[in-house]
Amino acid sequence: LLSSLAAAQPAPKPPARPRIISPEVLPDHRVTFRLQAPKASAVAVVGEFAKGPQPMVKDDSGLWSLTLGPLEPDIYSYSFSVDGFSTLDPNNQDLKESLRPTQSLLEVPGDKPVPYEARPVPHGAVHVHWYHSKSVGALRRVYVYTPPEYDTAKRTRYPVLYLLHGSGDSENGWTWVGRANLIADNLLAERKSKPAIIVMPFGHVFTASGAPGPANAFEQDLLKDVIPMIERTYRVAADRDNRAIAGLSMGGNQALTIGLGHLELFGWVGAFSSAVRDAPKTLTAVLADPAAANKKLRLLWIGCGRQDSLFAANEKFVQVLKQHNINHVLHYTEGAHTWRLWRYYLAELLPLLFQRK
Amino acid sequence: LLSSLAAAQPAPKPPARPRIISPEVLPDHRVTFRLQAPKASAVAVVGEFAKGPQPMVKDDSGLWSLTLGPLEPDIYSYSFSVDGFSTLDPNNQDLKESLRPTQSLLEVPGDKPVPYEARPVPHGAVHVHWYHSKSVGALRRVYVYTPPEYDTAKRTRYPVLYLLHGSGDSENGWTWVGRANLIADNLLAERKSKPAIIVMPFGHVFTASGAPGPANAFEQDLLKDVIPMIERTYRVAADRDNRAIAGLSMGGNQALTIGLGHLELFGWVGAFSSAVRDAPKTLTAVLADPAAANKKLRLLWIGCGRQDSLFAANEKFVQVLKQHNINHVLHYTEGAHTWRLWRYYLAELLPLLFQRK
Repeated sequence: LLSSLAAAQPAPKPPARPRIISPEVLPDHRVTFRLQAPKASAVAVVGEFAKGPQPMVKDDSGLWSLTLGPLEPDIYSYSFSVDGFSTLDPNNQDLKESLRPTQSLLEVPGDKPVPYEARPVPHGAVHVHWYHSKSVGALRRVYVYTPPEYDTAKRTRYPVLYLLHGSGDSENGWTWVGRANLIADNLLAERKSKPAIIVMPFGHVFTASGAPGPANAFEQDLLKDVIPMIERTYRVAADRDNRAIAGLSMGGNQALTIGLGHLELFGWVGAFSSAVRDAPKTLTAVLADPAAANKKLRLLWIGCGRQDSLFAANEKFVQVLKQHNINHVLHYTEGAHTWRLWRYYLAELLPLLFQRK
Repeated sequence: LLSSLAAAQPAPKPPARPRIISPEVLPDHRVTFRLQAPKASAVAVVGEFAKGPQPMVKDDSGLWSLTLGPLEPDIYSYSFSVDGFSTLDPNNQDLKESLRPTQSLLEVPGDKPVPYEARPVPHGAVHVHWYHSKSVGALRRVYVYTPPEYDTAKRTRYPVLYLLHGSGDSENGWTWVGRANLIADNLLAERKSKPAIIVMPFGHVFTASGAPGPANAFEQDLLKDVIPMIERTYRVAADRDNRAIAGLSMGGNQALTIGLGHLELFGWVGAFSSAVRDAPKTLTAVLADPAAANKKLRLLWIGCGRQDSLFAANEKFVQVLKQHNINHVLHYTEGAHTWRLWRYYLAELLPLLFQRK
């Protein structure tokens, strides 16, 4: 099998350390972006920190650069536009994991603590499981966070949050872009939340060829493949008081649909900037008996940014809840449809989950 | 903290399913590459499957495409050159994880089984641990593979292979590029290897600012931080007969240096396409008492491609071994300095490890 390898081989890789540092966060929170593109005639940085493309300047060696800011502490996504072609930053290992790898991540640290930062606290682990989903008919992956104490506190059973990603993302998004594990680590170190397992499945059901899977396939995958596997593999408290579901955007709609459609399984439901569509349909089971639903539902948490194009749809959904006196917690903030909100939303939600009555 | 989020927000993301399919592997193993770049005047695909850039052709919509092959079954890395600017394929989620994200991965399936493919066999899990390394003075990550039976066979202690990456890669390389977990799954399903834990640490010691860490820091990190953490956390058979170390390129040199320098800790050493430098220095401990070393060393496995620019250095190292009658297994193949060899090398090495005397 190796016989053909002699032809067409690249030379050994250059030394690992990137000679070009990009992005470079300066002590005053200004940020320098750099890109080597000697043949390009116009290069710009396009990011969540500035309106529109920010033109970069080329030096004699073909290195383009630009210093912006100071920027407010946050994690921003950005890309470079090279003569109109959009690409991630090739010198930045921290790319935005997604179905289309076109953006990089920039973390600007703050003077005040932020919920998603890496602190010198005990860290939980993230476990990646490959499983054959009977519901979807494909090999899929699920990411699972266990709290720092999980391996030593051998006898405890843990509650579980099923945490769903958005339509542009994948099962790794909540870890590498959302930093769910570091957010949970920090809250646990501050004793602000209950130790819980966080399960992050893959929310799409289209096949390798790009064809869409059967309708309802994600719900089937979650209920019939993922949850049984998790409850076989981990020390889980397997009842509705210890089972939550939350998600963002597409995953927010999935959390509402699956969670509120199965109050016998889920006691806690969270929806971040949800792509809610048909409120009455999503709420069918709840509206059939609002009083019973209120009794079962330990928490229905709804967050959305006022500048999100999905804000109106969320408002409409909330109006139906109010109309039928369905208990819920509303968390409207400034902001649009971006990860910059969702890390904070998770940090708001986790302390509310799995508290005693 | 969210008050500034109203400004400069991007619109909600477009639907997730990429409208452009690239790469598309056709039934006859030809492959079509596609890239939307309407403003570009020359686009080419550059990959391990062909010598030099392969020019693509633009249609009226600005979509560039090219069909190549049929290609031999393998996993190839490739990039696009857009008017001379090198970038990964933005429509391909399967990128080559590395310190510089500039390449994508293409898997061409075969008619015959290959060791790294995803098969319908039991799958082990990959665990990501965040830990503060006292040796390096930084937060680092280590990836850990556990075999499929690990969670159910509660009482067994497992041997451990410490598996090191090359200079362009990171702690995630052996999983996402090298597919160590799937290779191990397949060998276990065929009963060709012993169930073992595979630990994949981060091999660089430079700090976040890009400055190099102290000399010897990786060895210290491995011996004083990683191994103790692994032996605390997993059910490990913690003795030299059950501890192996192997690596590729830079990691191959690390495996030789650390493994052969600590035969009291490691009974099995593997070096793939190693960046060996100073053979007598690397072999100091072994050459001090070759007979004793031969008694301790259960396996010294050396693989290298004949077209690798490091082949001569490996040959020189092997000559020193021969000169002093140090037992070793030599696995020279065709091929250059590429991941296309290292997946196969791992599949060769794993069945040899941890066998009884």
